[in-house]
Amino acid sequence: MRELPRFGAGLWHFASYLDRYAVDGYGPPRTTLDAIELAGSVGELSVVDLNYPFTPGVGLDEVKDALARAGLSAIGITPEIYLRRWAKGAFTNPDAGARAAALDLMSEAADVVRELGADYVKIWPGQDGWDYPFQVNHHDVWKLAVDGIADLAGRHPDLRFAIEYKPREPRVKMLWDSAARTILGIQQTGRDNIGVLLDFGHSLYGGESPADAAQLLIDHGLLYGMDVNDNLRGWDDDLVVGTVHLTEIFEFFHTLRINDWNGVWQLDQFPFREDSVDAARTSIRFLKAVHRALDLLDVDALTEAQARQDAMAAQRLVQDALLQSMAGDR
Amino acid sequence: MRELPRFGAGLWHFASYLDRYAVDGYGPPRTTLDAIELAGSVGELSVVDLNYPFTPGVGLDEVKDALARAGLSAIGITPEIYLRRWAKGAFTNPDAGARAAALDLMSEAADVVRELGADYVKIWPGQDGWDYPFQVNHHDVWKLAVDGIADLAGRHPDLRFAIEYKPREPRVKMLWDSAARTILGIQQTGRDNIGVLLDFGHSLYGGESPADAAQLLIDHGLLYGMDVNDNLRGWDDDLVVGTVHLTEIFEFFHTLRINDWNGVWQLDQFPFREDSVDAARTSIRFLKAVHRALDLLDVDALTEAQARQDAMAAQRLVQDALLQSMAGDR
Amino acid sequence: MRELPRFGAGLWHFASYLDRYAVDGYGPPRTTLDAIELAGSVGELSVVDLNYPFTPGVGLDEVKDALARAGLSAIGITPEIYLRRWAKGAFTNPDAGARAAALDLMSEAADVVRELGADYVKIWPGQDGWDYPFQVNHHDVWKLAVDGIADLAGRHPDLRFAIEYKPREPRVKMLWDSAARTILGIQQTGRDNIGVLLDFGHSLYGGESPADAAQLLIDHGLLYGMDVNDNLRGWDDDLVVGTVHLTEIFEFFHTLRINDWNGVWQLDQFPFREDSVDAARTSIRFLKAVHRALDLLDVDALTEAQARQDAMAAQRLVQDALLQSMAGDR
Amino acid sequence: MRELPRFGAGLWHFASYLDRYAVDGYGPPRTTLDAIELAGSVGELSVVDLNYPFTPGVGLDEVKDALARAGLSAIGITPEIYLRRWAKGAFTNPDAGARAAALDLMSEAADVVRELGADYVKIWPGQDGWDYPFQVNHHDVWKLAVDGIADLAGRHPDLRFAIEYKPREPRVKMLWDSAARTILGIQQTGRDNIGVLLDFGHSLYGGESPADAAQLLIDHGLLYGMDVNDNLRGWDDDLVVGTVHLTEIFEFFHTLRINDWNGVWQLDQFPFREDSVDAARTSIRFLKAVHRALDLLDVDALTEAQARQDAMAAQRLVQDALLQSMAGDR
Repeated sequence: MRELPRFGAGLWHFASYLDRYAVDGYGPPRTTLDAIELAGSVGELSVVDLNYPFTPGVGLDEVKDALARAGLSAIGITPEIYLRRWAKGAFTNPDAGARAAALDLMSEAADVVRELGADYVKIWPGQDGWDYPFQVNHHDVWKLAVDGIADLAGRHPDLRFAIEYKPREPRVKMLWDSAARTILGIQQTGRDNIGVLLDFGHSLYGGESPADAAQLLIDHGLLYGMDVNDNLRGWDDDLVVGTVHLTEIFEFFHTLRINDWNGVWQLDQFPFREDSVDAARTSIRFLKAVHRALDLLDVDALTEAQARQDAMAAQRLVQDALLQSMAGDR
Repeated sequence: MRELPRFGAGLWHFASYLDRYAVDGYGPPRTTLDAIELAGSVGELSVVDLNYPFTPGVGLDEVKDALARAGLSAIGITPEIYLRRWAKGAFTNPDAGARAAALDLMSEAADVVRELGADYVKIWPGQDGWDYPFQVNHHDVWKLAVDGIADLAGRHPDLRFAIEYKPREPRVKMLWDSAARTILGIQQTGRDNIGVLLDFGHSLYGGESPADAAQLLIDHGLLYGMDVNDNLRGWDDDLVVGTVHLTEIFEFFHTLRINDWNGVWQLDQFPFREDSVDAARTSIRFLKAVHRALDLLDVDALTEAQARQDAMAAQRLVQDALLQSMAGDR
Repeated sequence: MRELPRFGAGLWHFASYLDRYAVDGYGPPRTTLDAIELAGSVGELSVVDLNYPFTPGVGLDEVKDALARAGLSAIGITPEIYLRRWAKGAFTNPDAGARAAALDLMSEAADVVRELGADYVKIWPGQDGWDYPFQVNHHDVWKLAVDGIADLAGRHPDLRFAIEYKPREPRVKMLWDSAARTILGIQQTGRDNIGVLLDFGHSLYGGESPADAAQLLIDHGLLYGMDVNDNLRGWDDDLVVGTVHLTEIFEFFHTLRINDWNGVWQLDQFPFREDSVDAARTSIRFLKAVHRALDLLDVDALTEAQARQDAMAAQRLVQDALLQSMAGDR
Repeated sequence: MRELPRFGAGLWHFASYLDRYAVDGYGPPRTTLDAIELAGSVGELSVVDLNYPFTPGVGLDEVKDALARAGLSAIGITPEIYLRRWAKGAFTNPDAGARAAALDLMSEAADVVRELGADYVKIWPGQDGWDYPFQVNHHDVWKLAVDGIADLAGRHPDLRFAIEYKPREPRVKMLWDSAARTILGIQQTGRDNIGVLLDFGHSLYGGESPADAAQLLIDHGLLYGMDVNDNLRGWDDDLVVGTVHLTEIFEFFHTLRINDWNGVWQLDQFPFREDSVDAARTSIRFLKAVHRALDLLDVDALTEAQARQDAMAAQRLVQDALLQSMAGDR
């Protein structure tokens, strides 16, 4: 069997959550250090993506020690440019002071990336967009978004910045909403250290084929990272991977393999009501099954079927690889 | 002009909000008393629907005094059966202790309804449902939902209980998800003191026509109350009413009028990033325009057009009324 | 292994298709007899649901002979009450003459059911609804729908009528749009010979859980029949079953099994661009795999997990049964 | 009042329709000449976009005469590269012969553009995409799409080619699915005579803000044309404009005006069950109201509100303009 990929997770997978209803939280608060320890206890993870700032009072050295104890390293740092201060946007906030504060926070995160030897600063501009028709001037707000990320990347030419696009939430509409729009914006920056983190679920509920989005990003040399989860195509449910869209997650990983994309298989999930370690282990268990299924897939026959765009033949090959219940049939 | 309706709002309209990203909240916390004062300052509201429990330390007498000072009365009480304790459900929680605790809280809320002379206990079982395929036995969980509300209503035969249905959120799927399903469940209870609070936005993004849902509920004698807002049909955005779906909100109120349904026009909105008083005033300003438009509508001609199912003729009548409704105001 | 179910298909699976773009059709026209012969050639089908009227010039005796030659029997007859004459509705057409003509056609179909010894008249009122806000009076149009089906069923007390609900298409909104609404309407008729044909895809893209909808219908004694296919949850794509939603189709069949529902597993698919026999064989091949997976599923452990609403444990059991790639892991 | 724009329509607005259910059509067939006469009878239209080929037996001279008699000119020609021959794609068909045939048809359409002095060849590759996961190799199929349009445009450097993007239908997924993806593809061609026809409804149900999409295309110099209609955001319903999304269509036209985009306001509607002339007149009547509303809008105040991203202030200004736009007309 092909060697297993490295597995990772957003550290928030091991946090506890709030939403607008359960304002007392789905569980007791956890510190950055608690979350690192839980991530380590999964026993399958090699890397984590850490939110920044850390829990108040937790220093960088403590984080380094905790990561070492947990056998983890940092793949990315995600500055929290979606907190109250940036409720109306980070790069596109109408208040110049808020925009400056966001850039400062992202530059601090850049320093942490250097300190921890991470691969990238993860930029998730979830508050950059609008809620209502007529709320913004679309030319001006997109210009703020593009100029802002260009400015940030220009300040840190030694680092890579990975934009995670998403159609919406928390804003009713996000500016960086799709693979194509994000590529377009990155091209407008003229920078070569800005790329994309593709979230399977964001792509799926945005109406993309995640496999197609991955191919498009790879063809533009911009697929810096990816993470997986699942949803019902109507919202970013951040369900555990493999619980709904088995065929499309398989197509996604098949696409990565045929392009020799060998990055980390990361989890971006919100197990609101589940034990987060159990959820992570269930996820990795499934991802290993997908990895085995990739070895079982008759790629030559699939290539021929795809050349004919023969969906039925392709599906039979996929089902042969994916379905154990097919075993008695072969 | 026909006399204006009474206007109301869910008191949460004047709270501040959290979500899974802006965990520090979209604004400073507000107490029940703060929210009542803000509601009063709108100057257009007659009634509010209050969450229960009140802010820790705030007593019922203080609430009564605050309501009196604000010139408001209570139309409903909404027990918060969607907090952490009930993350896996109130009526349908797998833990019998949690179910009992939910019933206790709802019975406390019933006492507050009596104390404040409100119209109903508002039941919003937002955590009653499931997130994953295969998570629940569908027969068992629906039975828990129906038996639970029947038990509650049976304990308080002197009061009315209004179920607010919604397709999803915070659960990936809610059990009480549509007007028809809710009517069906209420019929199964055999109780005559359970009805429905119809939320315009829930109906809209659930794929219903809110006007049709209102008619169905009225025809079953179950429309206990309603509230309005707006969204983009994909999620419960709780936007300010009249910002997106002008025609369908107009059809909704037209349907209420031709059925002589004369209840309160309530707001259920989450102005995350707006001033909540400004948002409420903007809403009422629009609702008054709708009320004028209803007077401008040629109902006889519309009735004839509908008898022919002549959509174009109906639309011209609607546009004539709606697209001049603001004129008288300037 | 549990004995295999009987398999069936809507005869239209073997027709050729038109849509509003490929107005010259996705293939050459096929007669009722052509389609029956193709259905027989699949080699796995026991029954078909036949559209009525048959192709002009094709008589009932020819159809009987063709079915006999193909080794098929009729499970249902579907009167085409969605052709031009009924573009504005069958039961709810504003023209009384069109409504009467629809009832006549459905009564002819009832005779064919008797002649062929089929199980039911399949009623699919796809044109009964509306396209625009304000187009119809919602009370009146629903009354026409309910009274119409009651009248039809009352004329043929010896037969069963199966309503196939669907959220929309070809109308922008269909009246019989969900399991709950359909049950409600059937209850209003007071008839005991009206039930439901549940289409997996209609339920899925309508925002239901098909497993939950099946359970609700079974609990009301109204699940007369079902058919399967797949889609992307946004439209009635009528894709081949098992190509997208493996887990949810598995939950659907699991729900039928635990309720001892032993009807025919029918296909309702539109293979616009595929060979229809190849598509049917690919479908049955997958359905047999699902049938085997049901035998592999640890139902006792699943029942325990569902009692705790433990989604992760339930998913692991489901994946163990469904995924061949998990075999190396067990 | 600002001078009225020129109004136009896709000639198919005046055709009759088929779909997969009403296979006998929603009305009697109409020839190209019938449709031109009907378009002329609307009395408000200046231009039409004509499908090509014309009805068999109808020659170019007859079309020229009919247009002259109807007082219409041609704005675009739309080759029907979505008929049976191209069920699996035009530019991306797996059969090289079908691809060549599509290019030939489009080149014939180019000649008709020259003959009629139209502005562009309208390219609507509705069959270019896929239906099933794993059906295509995403790199290869996108390359076929981009190389194909580049080849076509290269053969006719004297003409302009307007791609009309759409998320899906008739394919489950279309390749040219959004404004951003289309811009990206056009950039890959390196051609300067390929642009975009923006369809309001396609943009809306694709999850874009049509106003934002228009701005993005204008900023790239690629907005060759546009057409309007309406839908419920879940499908390309091609409803009559102004029947659902009043605010967003107003924002769309506001965006065109502030960018001094002064092209034709075209209708792309499918009045399946309506009189097509009545539907067109109802549309223009509404569009004139929108045009008045643009004059009523306090653009300076709106600009200030947008600089603050003050949604409530913006909405009040919009409602003031829109909700009195019909008043002057009565």
